[in-house]
Amino acid sequence: MKTGLPHTVKKSQNNRMPGGFLFSTAEAAIKKPGRKDIALILSEGRSSIAGAFTTNSVKAAPVKICMQKIKSGTGQAIIVNSGNANACTGKKGTKDANDIIHLVSKYLGVNPSLIYICSTGVIGTPMPMERIVPAVQTLAENIGKASLSDIAQAIMTTDTFPKIVSRKVKIGRDSGIISGICKGAGMIAPKLATMLCFIMTDIAVEQKTMKSMLKDSARKSFNRITIDGDMSTNDTLLMMSNGILGNMPITRRSEHFLPFKKALDEVTCELSRLIVKDGEGATKLIEVLVKGARNESDAEKAAFAVANSNLVKTAVYGNDANWGRIMAALGYSGIKFREEKTDILLGNIKVVKKGISNNRDKEASNALRSKEVRITIDLHSGNSSAKVLTCDLTEDYVRVNAEYKT
Amino acid sequence: MKTGLPHTVKKSQNNRMPGGFLFSTAEAAIKKPGRKDIALILSEGRSSIAGAFTTNSVKAAPVKICMQKIKSGTGQAIIVNSGNANACTGKKGTKDANDIIHLVSKYLGVNPSLIYICSTGVIGTPMPMERIVPAVQTLAENIGKASLSDIAQAIMTTDTFPKIVSRKVKIGRDSGIISGICKGAGMIAPKLATMLCFIMTDIAVEQKTMKSMLKDSARKSFNRITIDGDMSTNDTLLMMSNGILGNMPITRRSEHFLPFKKALDEVTCELSRLIVKDGEGATKLIEVLVKGARNESDAEKAAFAVANSNLVKTAVYGNDANWGRIMAALGYSGIKFREEKTDILLGNIKVVKKGISNNRDKEASNALRSKEVRITIDLHSGNSSAKVLTCDLTEDYVRVNAEYKT
Repeated sequence: MKTGLPHTVKKSQNNRMPGGFLFSTAEAAIKKPGRKDIALILSEGRSSIAGAFTTNSVKAAPVKICMQKIKSGTGQAIIVNSGNANACTGKKGTKDANDIIHLVSKYLGVNPSLIYICSTGVIGTPMPMERIVPAVQTLAENIGKASLSDIAQAIMTTDTFPKIVSRKVKIGRDSGIISGICKGAGMIAPKLATMLCFIMTDIAVEQKTMKSMLKDSARKSFNRITIDGDMSTNDTLLMMSNGILGNMPITRRSEHFLPFKKALDEVTCELSRLIVKDGEGATKLIEVLVKGARNESDAEKAAFAVANSNLVKTAVYGNDANWGRIMAALGYSGIKFREEKTDILLGNIKVVKKGISNNRDKEASNALRSKEVRITIDLHSGNSSAKVLTCDLTEDYVRVNAEYKT
Repeated sequence: MKTGLPHTVKKSQNNRMPGGFLFSTAEAAIKKPGRKDIALILSEGRSSIAGAFTTNSVKAAPVKICMQKIKSGTGQAIIVNSGNANACTGKKGTKDANDIIHLVSKYLGVNPSLIYICSTGVIGTPMPMERIVPAVQTLAENIGKASLSDIAQAIMTTDTFPKIVSRKVKIGRDSGIISGICKGAGMIAPKLATMLCFIMTDIAVEQKTMKSMLKDSARKSFNRITIDGDMSTNDTLLMMSNGILGNMPITRRSEHFLPFKKALDEVTCELSRLIVKDGEGATKLIEVLVKGARNESDAEKAAFAVANSNLVKTAVYGNDANWGRIMAALGYSGIKFREEKTDILLGNIKVVKKGISNNRDKEASNALRSKEVRITIDLHSGNSSAKVLTCDLTEDYVRVNAEYKT
């Protein structure tokens, strides 16, 4: 029954996809039938792998498994499903995840230690193994027949569009690709969202270098977004480099380090932006920029307090220049600042000057009628800044989440 | 123009109202015309007074003024308006509040140091003094003509019903009354809501005893409710005891201390329950009880994490027994606990037993179809517990708040 690995190892054939990665999707009807809900990513050779995981103390079985495996720094395959998070499923959940890994191993001939597993969906429901087991075989049989875009579709839950971002990086005369896909939509909060994100590159990167690059990149992208302040049990970010391009592995001292890091930052920032744009029920992207803070931690705290405020988010939704809610959120953010020094801009309109109304609320209401709204807060207390992305809070957020499980 | 104080000093005439307090309301058309939006509470004599105020670092002008005055422990009148919070209004805001106090003083002949002021409503808009000044005169002229219920109506913002609770306390052969009124509705969060609450009693209580009683009582009532996690700039709780009953002032050692404290706790708990019931857009009251915690602080943190979760609140709204969201909220609450020891009950239905599904989700969905839903979480890690009240999150919350200011 072993399907085996394809024998040809190809370099990237276009500027959208890293070479040496194969994809497959199948329907396991995990939550309900009618869509591809399980997927396989396979590197043609062993890859360097790095990752980041939810900081929620309640972690799904697959998260715990990946956190163990990733210590080795190597991997070759990722199996992922939507529709069921395999969280709060006890010992059976762990067994199910390991059983799936062993099935993949059997069909592909890849050592189980190199196979990673991710799940997203409902918490607390056992995995429907009777439907997953045959689907894993289908996945293995069809490896290479799906595209990265198919994978991005298969991992969607309440997402309304698939999220893929790619960047080309010139490495000497060649060029390689970094591609990332992710799913987000709800339960999005600081310290990773309910987010699964897989980043692949055919450019060789030394594992420790990749790990520290990814950490820094995630800190300023995925860790700076919030949709509803809820933090998931399943957040997983995995990055694989298979080195198919044949370059000398990039280290911190390589000439290619900075261009590669820049491309990676673009991929993670753009993906996190797409997650927020697709926030459950969202009609607007909100960028909260806090500057003039005493330090970056204060800037981040203040930006998150504003970005997580239901009252601010509903006001933006209603084009209501209700900046008092922003001021109130700053006031309970826990940072030290002087109300009478604070300026607030909605779009380009300065609504608050030195802590009081600048009498431009009407213009500001118009500025809010945009699909992308920037709230700028200048605390005039220092030189640090932080930007957090969020979205508005709408009736549809409530509708989507009131009807999610049942 | 001085209206002066009425000369008769009356004891409580019924079992609903403390004696020696006089009320008045007027229309100042502060946000819009058509309702009484300014009110005056006057004690016939000097009262002991104690209070609690928002911990938001952005405090409205009247809050800052009350915090100064209350150090004296005495007071006689409270002037309060809805429609404008007089917050983020700079020096003008402070001057406006003091001007109003001096007007009240002039008309009533009460020393300004004994007059407290509270405001609730929109932040950042200057007070319409041209309409408030004549209304203050009307208030003074009509003192004694309004009821406590009229005051409770005048302080409403997005509240849908006035909130009054009274308790009788037997003091020897006499009995006195504790009455409280409050407004709440939105921006309700731990450490006081946008809440104004005035408690009056004709029973004499020694000021320091009242202060410590009130603090303890608020900790377990107003500080254990949350509607949207937003904390206001204006929260104010004031309690006045005018001692008209003529009893020996109650101290910690009095025989009447415990019955009085019990009645006060009932008033604050019932008022805070009414605030949550009237949460913006709320269709259900949710009681989150965390027990078996290592200590009270853990229990409180866990209960607040669950009570503030938008995902939990929308699930309750949708009768969706999605207990995974409760587990996820416990996981990011920051407390130490063991997932595999945790039980969760929705109503009386144990949906989670030792961290995993108890296969009773359907029954639990039915349990959620109640106007009052209790979520019980037993961490089995200790003997401490805490209860937090909140409400569901609905499309109407979004609607109310998207259209509030403009």
